[in-house]
Amino acid sequence: MRAALSLAARGLGRVWPNPAVGCVITDPTGHVVGRGHTQPGGRPHAETEALRQAGMAARGGTAYVTLEPCSHYGKTPPCAEALIAAGIKRCVVALGDPDPRVSGRGLALLREAGIDVTEGVLQAEADRLNAGFLKRIRQGQPLAALKLATTLDGRIATRSGESQWITGTASRQRGHLLRASYDAILVGSGSALADNPTLTCRLPGLAHRSPVRVVLDRRLRLSLDSILVQTAHQTPTWLVTGSAHGDGQLAAFRSAGVEVIELPGQAGPQEILAALGGRGLTRLLIEGGAQVASAFLAADAIDRLIWMRAPGILGGDALAAIGELGLDQLAAMRRFDLRAAQIIQGECLETYDRLS
Amino acid sequence: MRAALSLAARGLGRVWPNPAVGCVITDPTGHVVGRGHTQPGGRPHAETEALRQAGMAARGGTAYVTLEPCSHYGKTPPCAEALIAAGIKRCVVALGDPDPRVSGRGLALLREAGIDVTEGVLQAEADRLNAGFLKRIRQGQPLAALKLATTLDGRIATRSGESQWITGTASRQRGHLLRASYDAILVGSGSALADNPTLTCRLPGLAHRSPVRVVLDRRLRLSLDSILVQTAHQTPTWLVTGSAHGDGQLAAFRSAGVEVIELPGQAGPQEILAALGGRGLTRLLIEGGAQVASAFLAADAIDRLIWMRAPGILGGDALAAIGELGLDQLAAMRRFDLRAAQIIQGECLETYDRLS
Repeated sequence: MRAALSLAARGLGRVWPNPAVGCVITDPTGHVVGRGHTQPGGRPHAETEALRQAGMAARGGTAYVTLEPCSHYGKTPPCAEALIAAGIKRCVVALGDPDPRVSGRGLALLREAGIDVTEGVLQAEADRLNAGFLKRIRQGQPLAALKLATTLDGRIATRSGESQWITGTASRQRGHLLRASYDAILVGSGSALADNPTLTCRLPGLAHRSPVRVVLDRRLRLSLDSILVQTAHQTPTWLVTGSAHGDGQLAAFRSAGVEVIELPGQAGPQEILAALGGRGLTRLLIEGGAQVASAFLAADAIDRLIWMRAPGILGGDALAAIGELGLDQLAAMRRFDLRAAQIIQGECLETYDRLS
Repeated sequence: MRAALSLAARGLGRVWPNPAVGCVITDPTGHVVGRGHTQPGGRPHAETEALRQAGMAARGGTAYVTLEPCSHYGKTPPCAEALIAAGIKRCVVALGDPDPRVSGRGLALLREAGIDVTEGVLQAEADRLNAGFLKRIRQGQPLAALKLATTLDGRIATRSGESQWITGTASRQRGHLLRASYDAILVGSGSALADNPTLTCRLPGLAHRSPVRVVLDRRLRLSLDSILVQTAHQTPTWLVTGSAHGDGQLAAFRSAGVEVIELPGQAGPQEILAALGGRGLTRLLIEGGAQVASAFLAADAIDRLIWMRAPGILGGDALAAIGELGLDQLAAMRRFDLRAAQIIQGECLETYDRLS
């Protein structure tokens, strides 16, 4: 199942709105004969791939699947039926599928066919891997991860605004790698104006894995000359803005290839996440700046923190990574749970999940 | 030598102005027959202890010493002579002693007596362990370590000043343990007034290891009723203040048991460290607050950072751990080198040395 989870992770950022699933098939003697993961765009499914590799060797074997095999006819025949047809004898599943079209029916189909089904193996790991897919199914919103690259004292720029670069090359490359595993990157218009960023995954061989770029720009301040707008035909770019703008203004963005999402002026982080979830996003990486970070934290809308920390200090007059939260009591502190920590070329990278 | 270094560390915070030394003696067959470390107050020396344990078994054996054995007659006869008299055949030394009264003469004495001397074994480790002693000998100042306990975004209190507690029980206990290995703790008068702290090592069995308490109080704002002043007869308390105060004002502090150190009004961190080094301190732990931290950082007077970080966020309007540094360019960022990182009950503890 660990191998299947590892295969599943390859699909993160490439299969939305589908789940990233992994499948390993062993023959009756326990040798691995097939491995598969959800392919870009969501098809073929992991089981299809693994069964294709295994061929006749799957007969009498075991399938390890990270998510309950599907039971409904969609773009492809149901995977549960494919496993049955291949003569699988035992199926080990990490997690049930909360999708109402599946939700237990996949496992029921397998059991009715006489297949020995084991559930819940490495369920916690599968749950975390599928956190984005699961959150969208349950709440209609993508997983919201806030990525920060700060000094030890939590600063992202000097008081005069110099910000390139706080962290070193290795951490910045890791940041690009991170982008490849998310469906979309979100920044505020302040960041977009200040940095004129590209927001793509600029690692050799991974350029095609650049996620959707989302700009929060209620006041429509983004320039038509910005890199984001100019490259919108190459890399999907969504503009979330207020609803009071004239159609003429928006038409210019649309003809540049930007998808414009109009929300009411008072729409907050929860409404924005709902709108993005409605468009299929399951994993959203929020990259800045300080105002967007504090707005989402204040709305309790951050599920995960990814914090890169350079071993330097800029002082209290430098630009803080997080804007004002207006908290008077420590009891109101936004609390998280450390999930992973590593050191990348002398810089700390920590991942936290929201304390549930 | 690793065992000897581990023994040496037991003396940190208890032997100033002497170095914390460790010594392991093996008999001719390589069995450990004696172990010693510098005792509280600096005497007996590590070698004396180890030789006493070893007795006749030291004859023909090897002595592993973390610092060059002393060669001068001080309060005790020189350790080099004691090793010779005990019939040691080989001496392995981590680090030469920069004390001008020793500086190579200890090793020369051993060699003249026909002892096989090996130098520089685990020298880097010994250098770091003795950083305080070495800095005082070379620069006349103690090692200055800044200890911080902050949120992820570098805050030490809410905007309304609530600060107890940012970090959890385990980190705070670690903070007390840290105090036991330093000669003195330093705080600014702002912290002393706001928190009325005790600044002792409050761990079972370690109360007697509370270091000297140093308060920076140029304007003499500290109250005679404060815990620090009231307990000055039990735990040494030094007050660093300006030189313009009347003798009557200072006499009240002195009669309460406080040692008053008068420095000129314009004295900065370097002068303060020099005054403390002149009184014998080798290891100084700076515990707050934000203004003291930024003053010492601005003066490039922080050698080591010990950063405890709770998994929470308070936002940009909360109290920053470090005051203003006035830096406009990233090139001026205060840079450090990560030396150790560990996780204590879900909180990160990192140690950094100044980038030399």
